[in-house]
Amino acid sequence: MNNSQTDKPFILVSNDDGIFSPGIKALAEVAAEFGDVYIVAPDREQSAVGHAITVQVPLRSSKFTVSDKFEGEAVNGTPADCVKLAHGQLLDHKPDLIVSGINHGSNAGINVLYSGTVSAATEGTILGYPSIAVSCTDFDENANLNACKESARRVIRFVLEKGLPKGITLNVNAASGEFKGIKWTRMADSRYVEEYEGRKDPFNRAYYWLTGKFELLDDGDDSDIHILKNDVASVTPIQYDLTAYDLLGDVEDEDLE
Amino acid sequence: MNNSQTDKPFILVSNDDGIFSPGIKALAEVAAEFGDVYIVAPDREQSAVGHAITVQVPLRSSKFTVSDKFEGEAVNGTPADCVKLAHGQLLDHKPDLIVSGINHGSNAGINVLYSGTVSAATEGTILGYPSIAVSCTDFDENANLNACKESARRVIRFVLEKGLPKGITLNVNAASGEFKGIKWTRMADSRYVEEYEGRKDPFNRAYYWLTGKFELLDDGDDSDIHILKNDVASVTPIQYDLTAYDLLGDVEDEDLE
Repeated sequence: MNNSQTDKPFILVSNDDGIFSPGIKALAEVAAEFGDVYIVAPDREQSAVGHAITVQVPLRSSKFTVSDKFEGEAVNGTPADCVKLAHGQLLDHKPDLIVSGINHGSNAGINVLYSGTVSAATEGTILGYPSIAVSCTDFDENANLNACKESARRVIRFVLEKGLPKGITLNVNAASGEFKGIKWTRMADSRYVEEYEGRKDPFNRAYYWLTGKFELLDDGDDSDIHILKNDVASVTPIQYDLTAYDLLGDVEDEDLE
Repeated sequence: MNNSQTDKPFILVSNDDGIFSPGIKALAEVAAEFGDVYIVAPDREQSAVGHAITVQVPLRSSKFTVSDKFEGEAVNGTPADCVKLAHGQLLDHKPDLIVSGINHGSNAGINVLYSGTVSAATEGTILGYPSIAVSCTDFDENANLNACKESARRVIRFVLEKGLPKGITLNVNAASGEFKGIKWTRMADSRYVEEYEGRKDPFNRAYYWLTGKFELLDDGDDSDIHILKNDVASVTPIQYDLTAYDLLGDVEDEDLE
Protein backbone atom coordinates (compact mmCIF):
# COMPACT_ATOMS: atom_id res chain seq x y z
CA MET A 1 0.00 0.00 0.00
CA ASN A 2 0.99 3.62 -0.14
CA ASN A 3 -0.49 5.54 2.74
CA SER A 4 2.59 7.28 4.09
CA GLN A 5 1.94 9.02 7.38
CA THR A 6 1.59 12.81 7.45
CA ASP A 7 0.37 15.23 10.11
CA LYS A 8 -3.08 15.29 8.55
CA PRO A 9 -5.88 12.98 9.64
CA PHE A 10 -5.78 9.65 7.81
CA ILE A 11 -9.21 8.66 6.50
CA LEU A 12 -10.17 5.21 5.23
CA VAL A 13 -13.00 5.25 2.67
CA SER A 14 -15.14 2.21 1.87
CA ASN A 15 -18.62 1.48 0.51
CA ASP A 16 -20.87 -1.31 -0.72
CA ASP A 17 -21.49 -0.24 -4.31
CA GLY A 18 -17.88 -1.05 -5.21
CA ILE A 19 -14.87 0.95 -6.32
CA PHE A 20 -16.44 2.10 -9.58
CA SER A 21 -19.43 3.88 -8.06
CA PRO A 22 -19.71 7.68 -8.36
CA GLY A 23 -20.63 7.76 -4.67
CA ILE A 24 -17.26 6.57 -3.40
CA LYS A 25 -15.47 9.16 -5.51
CA ALA A 26 -17.72 11.89 -4.11
CA LEU A 27 -17.06 10.79 -0.53
CA ALA A 28 -13.31 10.53 -1.13
CA GLU A 29 -13.37 14.12 -2.43
CA VAL A 30 -15.02 15.36 0.76
CA ALA A 31 -12.69 13.30 2.97
CA ALA A 32 -9.66 14.73 1.13
CA GLU A 33 -10.66 18.22 2.33
CA PHE A 34 -9.83 17.01 5.84
CA GLY A 35 -6.89 14.68 5.43
CA ASP A 36 -5.12 11.88 3.57
CA VAL A 37 -7.46 9.39 1.95
CA TYR A 38 -7.06 5.70 1.22
CA ILE A 39 -9.81 3.57 -0.31
CA VAL A 40 -10.44 -0.10 0.50
CA ALA A 41 -13.70 -1.19 -1.08
CA PRO A 42 -15.40 -4.17 -2.72
CA ASP A 43 -14.35 -4.94 -6.30
CA ARG A 44 -18.03 -5.22 -7.28
CA GLU A 45 -21.44 -4.23 -5.97
CA GLN A 46 -22.26 -5.73 -2.57
CA SER A 47 -25.63 -4.15 -1.82
CA ALA A 48 -27.93 -5.65 0.82
CA VAL A 49 -25.20 -7.91 2.17
CA GLY A 50 -25.79 -6.65 5.72
CA HIS A 51 -22.95 -7.42 8.09
CA ALA A 52 -21.84 -10.48 6.11
CA ILE A 53 -18.20 -11.54 6.30
CA THR A 54 -16.37 -13.97 4.03
CA VAL A 55 -15.29 -17.11 5.84
CA GLN A 56 -15.10 -19.91 3.27
CA VAL A 57 -12.88 -18.44 0.55
CA PRO A 58 -9.72 -16.37 0.97
CA LEU A 59 -9.72 -12.64 0.30
CA ARG A 60 -7.52 -10.93 -2.28
CA SER A 61 -6.88 -7.27 -2.88
CA SER A 62 -5.68 -5.37 -5.97
CA LYS A 63 -4.39 -1.81 -6.08
CA PHE A 64 -6.25 0.79 -8.08
CA THR A 65 -6.60 4.55 -8.41
CA VAL A 66 -9.90 6.44 -8.55
CA SER A 67 -9.85 9.36 -11.03
CA ASP A 68 -6.02 9.37 -11.04
CA LYS A 69 -6.35 10.89 -7.61
CA PHE A 70 -7.25 8.50 -4.79
CA GLU A 71 -5.27 5.34 -4.23
CA GLY A 72 -6.74 2.23 -2.82
CA GLU A 73 -7.32 -1.49 -2.94
CA ALA A 74 -10.25 -3.47 -4.30
CA VAL A 75 -11.23 -6.55 -2.29
CA ASN A 76 -13.20 -9.61 -3.41
CA GLY A 77 -15.37 -9.43 -0.33
CA THR A 78 -18.09 -7.62 1.55
CA PRO A 79 -17.89 -4.10 3.01
CA ALA A 80 -17.22 -5.53 6.50
CA ASP A 81 -14.42 -7.68 4.99
CA CYS A 82 -12.88 -4.55 3.45
CA VAL A 83 -12.68 -2.74 6.78
CA LYS A 84 -11.41 -5.81 8.62
CA LEU A 85 -8.77 -6.49 5.97
CA ALA A 86 -7.71 -2.83 5.83
CA HIS A 87 -7.31 -2.81 9.63
CA GLY A 88 -5.62 -6.20 9.86
CA GLN A 89 -3.42 -6.32 6.75
CA LEU A 90 -3.57 -3.50 4.24
CA LEU A 91 -2.93 -0.29 6.21
CA ASP A 92 0.51 0.65 7.56
CA HIS A 93 -0.93 2.92 10.21
CA LYS A 94 -4.28 3.29 11.88
CA PRO A 95 -6.92 5.55 10.37
CA ASP A 96 -8.28 8.47 12.38
CA LEU A 97 -11.67 8.04 10.75
CA ILE A 98 -13.56 5.56 8.58
CA VAL A 99 -16.24 6.80 6.16
CA SER A 100 -18.46 4.52 4.08
CA GLY A 101 -20.52 5.56 1.03
CA ILE A 102 -21.91 7.58 -0.54
CA ASN A 103 -24.42 4.79 -1.03
CA HIS A 104 -26.77 5.03 -4.01
CA GLY A 105 -30.01 4.37 -2.12
CA SER A 106 -31.46 5.16 1.30
CA ASN A 107 -30.11 3.64 4.47
CA ALA A 108 -32.74 5.24 6.68
CA GLY A 109 -35.23 3.26 8.78
CA ILE A 110 -35.02 -0.52 8.59
CA ASN A 111 -32.60 -0.32 5.62
CA VAL A 112 -29.84 0.02 8.21
CA LEU A 113 -30.10 -3.69 8.96
CA TYR A 114 -29.62 -4.80 5.35
CA SER A 115 -27.03 -2.19 4.47
CA GLY A 116 -23.49 -3.06 3.46
CA THR A 117 -22.60 0.64 3.60
CA VAL A 118 -23.60 0.86 7.24
CA SER A 119 -21.93 -2.47 8.07
CA ALA A 120 -18.55 -1.15 6.87
CA ALA A 121 -18.92 1.76 9.28
CA THR A 122 -20.20 -0.47 12.09
CA GLU A 123 -17.21 -2.78 11.61
CA GLY A 124 -15.00 0.31 11.94
CA THR A 125 -16.72 1.13 15.23
CA ILE A 126 -16.26 -2.42 16.51
CA LEU A 127 -12.54 -2.16 15.72
CA GLY A 128 -12.35 1.11 17.68
CA TYR A 129 -12.37 3.76 14.93
CA PRO A 130 -14.76 6.74 14.70
CA SER A 131 -16.93 5.73 11.75
CA ILE A 132 -19.60 7.34 9.56
CA ALA A 133 -21.91 5.93 6.88
CA VAL A 134 -23.31 8.28 4.21
CA SER A 135 -26.17 7.47 1.82
CA CYS A 136 -28.23 9.24 -0.82
CA THR A 137 -31.94 8.42 -0.80
CA ASP A 138 -31.91 8.54 -4.61
CA PHE A 139 -30.94 5.25 -6.31
CA ASP A 140 -29.91 6.98 -9.52
CA GLU A 141 -26.12 6.74 -9.94
CA ASN A 142 -26.23 10.14 -11.65
CA ALA A 143 -28.13 11.83 -8.82
CA ASN A 144 -26.87 15.21 -7.64
CA LEU A 145 -24.86 14.37 -4.49
CA ASN A 146 -24.38 17.94 -3.26
CA ALA A 147 -26.59 17.58 -0.18
CA CYS A 148 -24.90 14.28 0.67
CA LYS A 149 -21.44 15.81 0.27
CA GLU A 150 -22.29 18.83 2.41
CA SER A 151 -23.84 16.55 5.06
CA ALA A 152 -20.77 14.32 5.02
CA ARG A 153 -18.54 17.42 5.31
CA ARG A 154 -20.37 18.66 8.40
CA VAL A 155 -20.48 15.28 10.11
CA ILE A 156 -16.81 14.52 9.35
CA ARG A 157 -15.84 17.93 10.79
CA PHE A 158 -17.94 17.23 13.89
CA VAL A 159 -16.38 13.80 14.44
CA LEU A 160 -12.78 14.93 13.84
CA GLU A 161 -13.29 17.78 16.33
CA LYS A 162 -15.33 16.05 19.01
CA GLY A 163 -14.76 12.33 18.50
CA LEU A 164 -17.44 9.69 19.03
CA PRO A 165 -18.23 7.67 22.16
CA LYS A 166 -17.20 4.01 22.13
CA GLY A 167 -19.66 1.78 20.31
CA ILE A 168 -21.39 4.53 18.33
CA THR A 169 -21.57 4.87 14.53
CA LEU A 170 -23.13 7.86 12.74
CA ASN A 171 -25.56 7.02 9.93
CA VAL A 172 -26.09 9.96 7.55
CA ASN A 173 -28.77 10.11 4.85
CA ALA A 174 -29.59 12.94 2.45
CA ALA A 175 -31.79 13.42 -0.60
CA SER A 176 -30.36 14.26 -4.02
CA GLY A 177 -30.03 17.94 -4.84
CA GLU A 178 -28.80 20.92 -2.89
CA PHE A 179 -28.20 20.98 0.88
CA LYS A 180 -31.16 22.26 2.94
CA GLY A 181 -30.06 21.49 6.49
CA ILE A 182 -29.23 18.46 8.64
CA LYS A 183 -30.77 17.18 11.89
CA TRP A 184 -29.96 14.59 14.55
CA THR A 185 -32.65 11.88 14.37
CA ARG A 186 -33.64 8.39 15.38
CA MET A 187 -34.17 5.37 13.12
CA ALA A 188 -37.78 5.12 11.90
CA ASP A 189 -39.70 1.93 12.61
CA SER A 190 -40.36 0.45 9.18
CA ARG A 191 -40.29 -2.75 7.13
CA TYR A 192 -40.76 -4.15 3.64
CA VAL A 193 -44.09 -5.67 2.54
CA GLU A 194 -45.38 -7.40 -0.63
CA GLU A 195 -41.88 -8.60 -1.03
CA TYR A 196 -41.82 -11.11 -3.88
CA GLU A 197 -43.09 -11.43 -7.41
CA GLY A 198 -43.62 -15.12 -8.24
CA ARG A 199 -42.87 -16.27 -11.82
CA LYS A 200 -42.58 -19.57 -13.67
CA ASP A 201 -39.49 -20.53 -15.65
CA PRO A 202 -39.79 -22.19 -19.14
CA PHE A 203 -39.92 -25.56 -17.35
CA ASN A 204 -42.87 -24.43 -15.20
CA ARG A 205 -40.84 -24.20 -12.01
CA ALA A 206 -41.55 -21.32 -9.63
CA TYR A 207 -39.04 -18.61 -8.84
CA TYR A 208 -39.37 -15.37 -6.89
CA TRP A 209 -37.97 -11.90 -7.47
CA LEU A 210 -37.58 -9.63 -4.47
CA THR A 211 -39.64 -6.52 -5.18
CA GLY A 212 -40.28 -5.16 -1.69
CA LYS A 213 -42.45 -2.15 -0.94
CA PHE A 214 -41.20 0.02 1.92
CA GLU A 215 -43.72 0.52 4.74
CA LEU A 216 -43.31 3.23 7.38
CA LEU A 217 -44.72 2.05 10.74
CA ASP A 218 -43.73 5.18 12.58
CA ASP A 219 -46.07 8.08 13.39
CA GLY A 220 -43.41 10.31 14.93
CA ASP A 221 -42.24 13.49 13.25
CA ASP A 222 -38.70 13.08 14.55
CA SER A 223 -37.51 9.96 12.71
CA ASP A 224 -34.89 9.87 9.95
CA ILE A 225 -37.48 9.08 7.29
CA HIS A 226 -39.80 11.90 8.37
CA ILE A 227 -36.99 14.43 8.31
CA LEU A 228 -35.78 13.25 4.91
CA LYS A 229 -39.28 13.80 3.50
CA ASN A 230 -38.73 17.50 4.17
CA ASP A 231 -35.46 17.40 2.22
CA VAL A 232 -33.46 17.84 5.42
CA ALA A 233 -30.54 15.41 5.86
CA SER A 234 -30.55 13.05 8.86
CA VAL A 235 -27.74 11.90 11.11
CA THR A 236 -28.62 8.99 13.38
CA PRO A 237 -26.31 7.69 16.12
CA ILE A 238 -26.55 3.89 16.06
CA GLN A 239 -25.01 1.29 18.36
CA TYR A 240 -23.80 -2.25 17.80
CA ASP A 241 -24.80 -3.35 21.30
CA LEU A 242 -28.23 -4.77 20.41
CA THR A 243 -29.27 -5.54 23.99
CA ALA A 244 -32.79 -4.32 24.75
CA TYR A 245 -31.86 -2.97 28.19
CA ASP A 246 -35.34 -1.65 29.09
CA LEU A 247 -36.89 -5.03 28.49
CA LEU A 248 -33.99 -6.82 30.18
CA GLY A 249 -34.77 -4.84 33.33
CA ASP A 250 -38.41 -5.95 33.12
CA VAL A 251 -37.80 -9.64 32.51
CA GLU A 252 -34.62 -10.48 34.38
CA ASP A 253 -36.49 -11.77 37.40
CA GLU A 254 -38.85 -13.85 35.26
CA ASP A 255 -38.17 -17.50 35.81
CA LEU A 256 -37.62 -19.69 32.75
CA GLU A 257 -38.91 -22.89 34.29
CA MET B 1 -46.72 -26.27 0.87
CA ASN B 2 -48.45 -28.46 3.37
CA ASN B 3 -48.97 -26.63 6.62
CA SER B 4 -52.66 -27.19 7.15
CA GLN B 5 -54.05 -25.18 10.02
CA THR B 6 -54.82 -26.90 13.34
CA ASP B 7 -55.59 -25.56 16.83
CA LYS B 8 -51.96 -25.95 17.85
CA PRO B 9 -49.40 -23.15 17.56
CA PHE B 10 -47.80 -23.07 14.13
CA ILE B 11 -44.02 -22.74 14.36
CA LEU B 12 -41.68 -21.84 11.49
CA VAL B 13 -38.15 -23.22 11.88
CA SER B 14 -35.13 -21.80 10.04
CA ASN B 15 -31.36 -21.62 10.50
CA ASP B 16 -28.13 -20.64 8.75
CA ASP B 17 -26.31 -23.97 8.68
CA GLY B 18 -28.77 -25.29 6.09
CA ILE B 19 -31.41 -28.01 6.02
CA PHE B 20 -28.95 -30.86 6.54
CA SER B 21 -27.55 -29.67 9.87
CA PRO B 22 -28.20 -31.71 13.02
CA GLY B 23 -29.07 -28.44 14.78
CA ILE B 24 -32.19 -27.71 12.75
CA LYS B 25 -33.50 -31.21 13.36
CA ALA B 26 -32.92 -30.81 17.11
CA LEU B 27 -34.78 -27.49 17.15
CA ALA B 28 -37.65 -28.87 15.07
CA GLU B 29 -38.01 -31.69 17.61
CA VAL B 30 -38.32 -29.21 20.47
CA ALA B 31 -40.72 -27.00 18.51
CA ALA B 32 -42.89 -30.04 17.72
CA GLU B 33 -43.52 -30.50 21.46
CA PHE B 34 -45.46 -27.22 21.31
CA GLY B 35 -47.15 -27.20 17.93
CA ASP B 36 -47.09 -27.84 14.20
CA VAL B 37 -43.70 -27.35 12.61
CA TYR B 38 -42.73 -26.23 9.12
CA ILE B 39 -39.11 -25.70 8.05
CA VAL B 40 -37.94 -23.06 5.57
CA ALA B 41 -34.14 -22.94 5.57
CA PRO B 42 -31.16 -22.39 3.27
CA ASP B 43 -30.26 -25.23 0.92
CA ARG B 44 -26.61 -24.90 1.99
CA GLU B 45 -24.51 -23.40 4.77
CA GLN B 46 -24.92 -19.63 5.08
CA SER B 47 -22.80 -18.88 8.13
CA ALA B 48 -21.59 -15.33 8.83
CA VAL B 49 -23.92 -13.83 6.22
CA GLY B 50 -25.31 -11.36 8.77
CA HIS B 51 -28.58 -9.79 7.70
CA ALA B 52 -27.83 -10.22 3.99
CA ILE B 53 -30.73 -10.53 1.58
CA THR B 54 -30.64 -11.69 -2.03
CA VAL B 55 -31.51 -8.93 -4.48
CA GLN B 56 -29.77 -9.74 -7.75
CA VAL B 57 -30.87 -13.29 -8.48
CA PRO B 58 -34.33 -14.82 -8.02
CA LEU B 59 -35.05 -17.22 -5.18
CA ARG B 60 -36.25 -20.79 -5.64
CA SER B 61 -37.53 -23.27 -3.11
CA SER B 62 -37.71 -27.08 -3.13
CA LYS B 63 -39.72 -29.26 -0.81
CA PHE B 64 -37.97 -31.69 1.47
CA THR B 65 -38.53 -33.72 4.63
CA VAL B 66 -36.18 -33.89 7.59
CA SER B 67 -35.93 -37.36 9.14
CA ASP B 68 -39.20 -38.42 7.43
CA LYS B 69 -40.87 -36.24 10.03
CA PHE B 70 -40.67 -32.51 9.43
CA GLU B 71 -41.76 -31.03 6.15
CA GLY B 72 -40.26 -27.93 4.71
CA GLU B 73 -38.70 -26.05 1.85
CA ALA B 74 -35.06 -25.42 1.03
CA VAL B 75 -34.28 -21.98 -0.39
CA ASN B 76 -31.26 -20.85 -2.44
CA GLY B 77 -30.81 -17.80 -0.23
CA THR B 78 -29.81 -16.42 3.11
CA PRO B 79 -31.57 -16.99 6.45
CA ALA B 80 -33.30 -13.58 6.18
CA ASP B 81 -34.44 -14.52 2.65
CA CYS B 82 -35.94 -17.75 4.00
CA VAL B 83 -38.06 -15.96 6.59
CA LYS B 84 -39.11 -13.25 4.13
CA LEU B 85 -40.03 -15.82 1.46
CA ALA B 86 -41.87 -18.03 3.97
CA HIS B 87 -43.89 -15.01 5.13
CA GLY B 88 -44.52 -13.60 1.66
CA GLN B 89 -45.00 -16.70 -0.48
CA LEU B 90 -44.55 -20.13 1.04
CA LEU B 91 -46.83 -20.25 4.10
CA ASP B 92 -50.60 -20.51 3.81
CA HIS B 93 -51.17 -19.04 7.25
CA LYS B 94 -49.13 -16.95 9.62
CA PRO B 95 -46.84 -18.62 12.12
CA ASP B 96 -47.34 -18.04 15.85
CA LEU B 97 -43.62 -18.25 16.43
CA ILE B 98 -40.36 -18.33 14.46
CA VAL B 99 -37.35 -20.21 15.80
CA SER B 100 -33.90 -20.22 14.19
CA GLY B 101 -31.10 -22.68 14.89
CA ILE B 102 -29.75 -24.62 16.64
CA ASN B 103 -26.62 -22.95 15.27
CA HIS B 104 -23.37 -24.89 15.45
CA GLY B 105 -21.24 -22.14 17.01
CA SER B 106 -21.72 -19.31 19.50
CA ASN B 107 -23.88 -16.30 18.74
CA ALA B 108 -23.03 -14.54 22.00
CA GLY B 109 -21.29 -11.16 22.18
CA ILE B 110 -20.35 -9.52 18.89
CA ASN B 111 -21.16 -12.73 16.97
CA VAL B 112 -24.77 -11.51 16.94
CA LEU B 113 -23.88 -8.98 14.24
CA TYR B 114 -22.38 -11.55 11.87
CA SER B 115 -24.91 -14.27 12.56
CA GLY B 116 -27.25 -15.61 9.94
CA THR B 117 -29.09 -17.57 12.64
CA VAL B 118 -29.91 -14.41 14.54
CA SER B 119 -30.79 -12.52 11.34
CA ALA B 120 -33.51 -15.08 10.51
CA ALA B 121 -35.06 -14.43 13.93
CA THR B 122 -34.61 -10.65 13.64
CA GLU B 123 -36.31 -10.72 10.23
CA GLY B 124 -39.19 -12.57 11.91
CA THR B 125 -39.40 -9.80 14.50
CA ILE B 126 -39.37 -7.10 11.81
CA LEU B 127 -42.29 -8.90 10.11
CA GLY B 128 -44.19 -8.93 13.41
CA TYR B 129 -43.69 -12.50 14.65
CA PRO B 130 -42.36 -13.52 18.08
CA SER B 131 -38.92 -14.88 17.20
CA ILE B 132 -36.12 -16.76 18.93
CA ALA B 133 -32.56 -17.65 17.86
CA VAL B 134 -30.84 -20.63 19.48
CA SER B 135 -27.11 -21.44 19.24
CA CYS B 136 -24.68 -23.95 20.70
CA THR B 137 -21.29 -22.52 21.67
CA ASP B 138 -19.65 -25.73 20.43
CA PHE B 139 -18.83 -25.77 16.68
CA ASP B 140 -18.77 -29.57 16.55
CA GLU B 141 -21.75 -30.81 14.52
CA ASN B 142 -21.84 -33.88 16.79
CA ALA B 143 -21.92 -31.86 20.01
CA ASN B 144 -24.44 -32.88 22.66
CA LEU B 145 -27.32 -30.42 22.17
CA ASN B 146 -29.24 -31.31 25.35
CA ALA B 147 -28.62 -27.98 27.10
CA CYS B 148 -29.56 -26.10 23.92
CA LYS B 149 -32.74 -28.11 23.52
CA GLU B 150 -33.79 -27.60 27.13
CA SER B 151 -33.00 -23.87 26.86
CA ALA B 152 -35.01 -23.64 23.64
CA ARG B 153 -37.89 -25.52 25.32
CA ARG B 154 -38.02 -23.07 28.24
CA VAL B 155 -37.76 -19.98 26.08
CA ILE B 156 -40.36 -21.22 23.56
CA ARG B 157 -42.74 -21.97 26.45
CA PHE B 158 -42.13 -18.48 27.88
CA VAL B 159 -42.78 -16.77 24.56
CA LEU B 160 -45.89 -18.79 23.68
CA GLU B 161 -47.33 -18.01 27.13
CA LYS B 162 -46.31 -14.39 27.55
CA GLY B 163 -45.53 -13.12 24.05
CA LEU B 164 -42.79 -10.66 23.23
CA PRO B 165 -42.94 -6.87 22.99
CA LYS B 166 -42.81 -5.38 19.50
CA GLY B 167 -39.30 -5.10 18.12
CA ILE B 168 -37.69 -7.64 20.47
CA THR B 169 -35.96 -10.90 19.50
CA LEU B 170 -34.64 -13.42 22.02
CA ASN B 171 -31.10 -14.67 21.43
CA VAL B 172 -30.39 -17.95 23.27
CA ASN B 173 -26.94 -19.53 23.63
CA ALA B 174 -25.96 -22.68 25.50
CA ALA B 175 -22.86 -24.84 25.81
CA SER B 176 -22.80 -28.48 24.68
CA GLY B 177 -23.73 -31.07 27.28
CA GLU B 178 -26.45 -31.25 29.90
CA PHE B 179 -28.63 -28.31 30.99
CA LYS B 180 -27.34 -26.44 34.06
CA GLY B 181 -29.64 -23.44 34.18
CA ILE B 182 -30.49 -20.40 32.06
CA LYS B 183 -30.27 -16.66 32.81
CA TRP B 184 -31.40 -13.39 31.22
CA THR B 185 -28.31 -11.49 30.13
CA ARG B 186 -26.96 -8.64 28.03
CA MET B 187 -24.70 -8.90 24.97
CA ALA B 188 -20.99 -8.82 25.93
CA ASP B 189 -18.79 -6.14 24.39
CA SER B 190 -16.31 -8.05 22.27
CA ARG B 191 -14.60 -8.18 18.88
CA TYR B 192 -12.28 -10.25 16.73
CA VAL B 193 -8.54 -9.51 16.53
CA GLU B 194 -5.55 -10.92 14.57
CA GLU B 195 -8.02 -11.62 11.90
CA TYR B 196 -6.14 -12.75 8.80
CA GLU B 197 -3.42 -15.16 7.86
CA GLY B 198 -1.60 -13.87 4.78
CA ARG B 199 -0.35 -16.48 2.24
CA LYS B 200 1.12 -16.45 -1.26
CA ASP B 201 -0.36 -18.45 -4.11
CA PRO B 202 1.88 -20.44 -6.56
CA PHE B 203 2.09 -17.25 -8.66
CA ASN B 204 3.36 -15.24 -5.67
CA ARG B 205 0.14 -13.25 -5.29
CA ALA B 206 -1.08 -12.52 -1.77
CA TYR B 207 -4.30 -13.89 -0.36
CA TYR B 208 -5.76 -13.81 3.15
CA TRP B 209 -7.64 -16.38 5.20
CA LEU B 210 -9.91 -15.15 7.96
CA THR B 211 -8.68 -16.70 11.20
CA GLY B 212 -10.01 -14.30 13.83
CA LYS B 213 -9.32 -14.58 17.55
CA PHE B 214 -12.25 -13.60 19.76
CA GLU B 215 -11.49 -10.85 22.27
CA LEU B 216 -13.75 -10.10 25.25
CA LEU B 217 -13.72 -6.38 26.06
CA ASP B 218 -16.23 -6.67 28.84
CA ASP B 219 -15.36 -6.80 32.55
CA GLY B 220 -18.93 -7.34 33.75
CA ASP B 221 -20.02 -10.61 35.30
CA ASP B 222 -23.52 -10.32 33.85
CA SER B 223 -22.89 -10.60 30.09
CA ASP B 224 -23.89 -13.53 27.90
CA ILE B 225 -20.29 -14.65 27.47
CA HIS B 226 -19.54 -14.52 31.20
CA ILE B 227 -22.60 -16.57 32.03
CA LEU B 228 -21.82 -19.13 29.34
CA LYS B 229 -18.35 -19.64 30.86
CA ASN B 230 -20.12 -21.03 33.90
CA ASP B 231 -22.03 -23.49 31.68
CA VAL B 232 -25.27 -21.60 32.28
CA ALA B 233 -27.31 -20.84 29.14
CA SER B 234 -27.98 -17.19 28.25
CA VAL B 235 -31.07 -15.51 26.84
CA THR B 236 -30.53 -11.96 25.62
CA PRO B 237 -33.36 -9.69 24.47
CA ILE B 238 -32.10 -7.80 21.41
CA GLN B 239 -33.72 -5.04 19.39
CA TYR B 240 -33.56 -4.07 15.73
CA ASP B 241 -33.94 -0.37 16.50
CA LEU B 242 -30.24 0.50 16.52
CA THR B 243 -30.73 4.13 17.59
CA ALA B 244 -28.36 5.10 20.41
CA TYR B 245 -31.04 7.05 22.33
CA ASP B 246 -28.84 8.07 25.26
CA LEU B 247 -26.33 9.65 22.95
CA LEU B 248 -29.06 11.16 20.78
CA GLY B 249 -30.33 13.00 23.85
CA ASP B 250 -26.83 14.36 24.45
CA VAL B 251 -26.09 15.53 20.93
CA GLU B 252 -29.39 16.60 19.46
CA ASP B 253 -28.80 20.25 20.28
CA GLU B 254 -25.26 20.17 18.86
CA ASP B 255 -25.11 22.25 15.73
CA LEU B 256 -23.65 20.65 12.62
CA GLU B 257 -22.35 23.84 11.06
